[in-house]
Amino acid sequence: MTIATKKQYESLTEQRAILYAEGLNFFSEDAKLACREIGDGNLNYVFHITDSKSGKGIIIKQALPYAKVVGESWPLTLKRAAIEANALKKHGEFAAGLVPKVYATDEELAITVMEDLSHLTIVRKGLIQLESYPKLASDIGVYLAKTLFHTSDFALHPFEKKRLVSEFSNPELCKITEDLIFTDPFFDHETNDFEPSIRANVEAIWSNESLKLEVAKLKKSFLTEAEALLHGDLHTGSIFASETETKVIDPEFAFYGPIGFDIGLFLANLIVQTISRDGEQQLVILHHIEQTWEVFSSEFSELWKNKAIESYKDTKGFEEYVLDKIFTDALGFAGCELIRRTIGLAHVNDLDGIADDEKRILTKKQALQIGEALILKRKEIKSIKAVVWLLEELYK
Amino acid sequence: MTIATKKQYESLTEQRAILYAEGLNFFSEDAKLACREIGDGNLNYVFHITDSKSGKGIIIKQALPYAKVVGESWPLTLKRAAIEANALKKHGEFAAGLVPKVYATDEELAITVMEDLSHLTIVRKGLIQLESYPKLASDIGVYLAKTLFHTSDFALHPFEKKRLVSEFSNPELCKITEDLIFTDPFFDHETNDFEPSIRANVEAIWSNESLKLEVAKLKKSFLTEAEALLHGDLHTGSIFASETETKVIDPEFAFYGPIGFDIGLFLANLIVQTISRDGEQQLVILHHIEQTWEVFSSEFSELWKNKAIESYKDTKGFEEYVLDKIFTDALGFAGCELIRRTIGLAHVNDLDGIADDEKRILTKKQALQIGEALILKRKEIKSIKAVVWLLEELYK
Repeated sequence: MTIATKKQYESLTEQRAILYAEGLNFFSEDAKLACREIGDGNLNYVFHITDSKSGKGIIIKQALPYAKVVGESWPLTLKRAAIEANALKKHGEFAAGLVPKVYATDEELAITVMEDLSHLTIVRKGLIQLESYPKLASDIGVYLAKTLFHTSDFALHPFEKKRLVSEFSNPELCKITEDLIFTDPFFDHETNDFEPSIRANVEAIWSNESLKLEVAKLKKSFLTEAEALLHGDLHTGSIFASETETKVIDPEFAFYGPIGFDIGLFLANLIVQTISRDGEQQLVILHHIEQTWEVFSSEFSELWKNKAIESYKDTKGFEEYVLDKIFTDALGFAGCELIRRTIGLAHVNDLDGIADDEKRILTKKQALQIGEALILKRKEIKSIKAVVWLLEELYK
Repeated sequence: MTIATKKQYESLTEQRAILYAEGLNFFSEDAKLACREIGDGNLNYVFHITDSKSGKGIIIKQALPYAKVVGESWPLTLKRAAIEANALKKHGEFAAGLVPKVYATDEELAITVMEDLSHLTIVRKGLIQLESYPKLASDIGVYLAKTLFHTSDFALHPFEKKRLVSEFSNPELCKITEDLIFTDPFFDHETNDFEPSIRANVEAIWSNESLKLEVAKLKKSFLTEAEALLHGDLHTGSIFASETETKVIDPEFAFYGPIGFDIGLFLANLIVQTISRDGEQQLVILHHIEQTWEVFSSEFSELWKNKAIESYKDTKGFEEYVLDKIFTDALGFAGCELIRRTIGLAHVNDLDGIADDEKRILTKKQALQIGEALILKRKEIKSIKAVVWLLEELYK
């Protein structure tokens, strides 16, 4: 008998995680298991279990019933573990190899057992250390196209699509996004967190009615437009990679939302990384930005051509309309992400980690400036090249 | 013991409907009940039960497990009875008096027991007979504003809104709309049904790529935009009225969709009625068209001002943006409804009932012409007055 038969939630310890792993029929009977908790402890435990005999390993991820953010403890649904596991499986159907394999799930214990990716690094950390991920942009472009196209009305029977919309209803995690990305940073809200030196820039945002109108539209889109099963939190901290591999992890914010949201979040996190760099090092990331959209859009078009079941798929202009909308939305969402990562509750090390005060403050102001431009000009910016030009403008 | 305790679906007869009614504790013990089935028998039985002693009456509506359309029999989910009853109750919370009261529901038997409205007439029939409904437009304007605003993200906590989105997931009935309103009429599809004399006009629609592109966008909106709990089928056959009362019935197509859809369907059915009339009789309906939008938009604004919980409610331009989008969407959906009621599977008596061949064919061509104009020009038409002008153009 193993812990797996228990029906009451209880958080694991490293010792109990080993017992749990032994019950999985994954390791051989004579395995010598060791365990280390490697999560950041904010939302989940992440147990890394290894067998020193075979060299095999697994990850046991357990959702915690609360979120620790800036010292506060928020209760948070354990249902997110099932959402995450189901999203990994659903996305894995279409983008196999780009998400971790799920070996087992346990809804009562809010546990997902999955592929050991400990040979990879978290992309945000790697990029900050100037590591190179030559496959990152094309892999993410493919991942985005495959997962988003295949879960949309363009590919699914409407009954299956609507079944998935209900299955992935994710109100609590969506509310975090609604508040922390679309609302709080644009008002003088207690969750905001920014350095005193940029207060004037922040106050300019709070009083910019044109900007807030556009953010209100983007928030409405996030609240209402069930276009595809999103990852929901696709920043560079949700991606493991090496020079040859890319794996998208942690889709606990998965839900049916606007396709541009996943793309926008990823692009924004590349933009933040670009502006934190100097000179030629920026070019690598600018190239990632271009390539992500180019691979996404050409892969999406390919899928449209070969797999779309929509009656209007061949109607002149429809595919272009859909891709234009996705692009425009993505820029707007990217703008919101840039602003909230600079002045909202959840910061990123790309910015906060810049040791030089002057450079850090300048970069944060640039993040706000680009964020505003992307939100306000998203309908005028007609190509990914134009986004790169916008970034290059900063250094003229 | 009454039939109500049975757990197996079985369709009622008039006699069994009386037995069922006796088990409801609605009529007194000495009631003398009579029953008449008054439905059109396509989708549901509608039993009208009356007590000749007290004069009291009720309606027992029972969903049938199939739909009879043009001789064919389609299996159709019985869950729609629960959707309909729940939508009546939910809409009744906000628009009491404008929907029938629900006295009881029985999910196993797919039964809803509700207020007897037999003193009222179906608006489509009444309008065709030139009956007058002085309160129709303002009542429907209020109904639309209250039901749609209160079930939207502008009024509901996001958890409650998302709970309702799942509760009212209605794939089978939505698919009927997706096919019969947004797809089939725009392609040479076997479900279409039109008079040979308008074949050239129909073929012009099938080959009009600009029109089809706009319909594709409207269909996408219907498929993805969960703005509010719609009635889902708000034509003039779904409304009972008299000179002093208005009751919206039959929300079995209810689901979370774009707000403009309910408004557009109602407007389209008024437009069809307008063009089927001559001379001064048209003015009555043109006035209904104007008044419906005016009452809806002023009531919606009032609710926005006093009840909206959205953080951006006071952001300059946001309310206007929302109302503009609703208006534009409504015109587009109205255009689709006009076209499908003329050449699709489900016709209306306003058109088919015109005895004079020449007049009928001319009116059908006008319906197509206005439908196309509303779809193609929906972003240029800036006011409900402009819709009236568009209709008046036909007679210049």
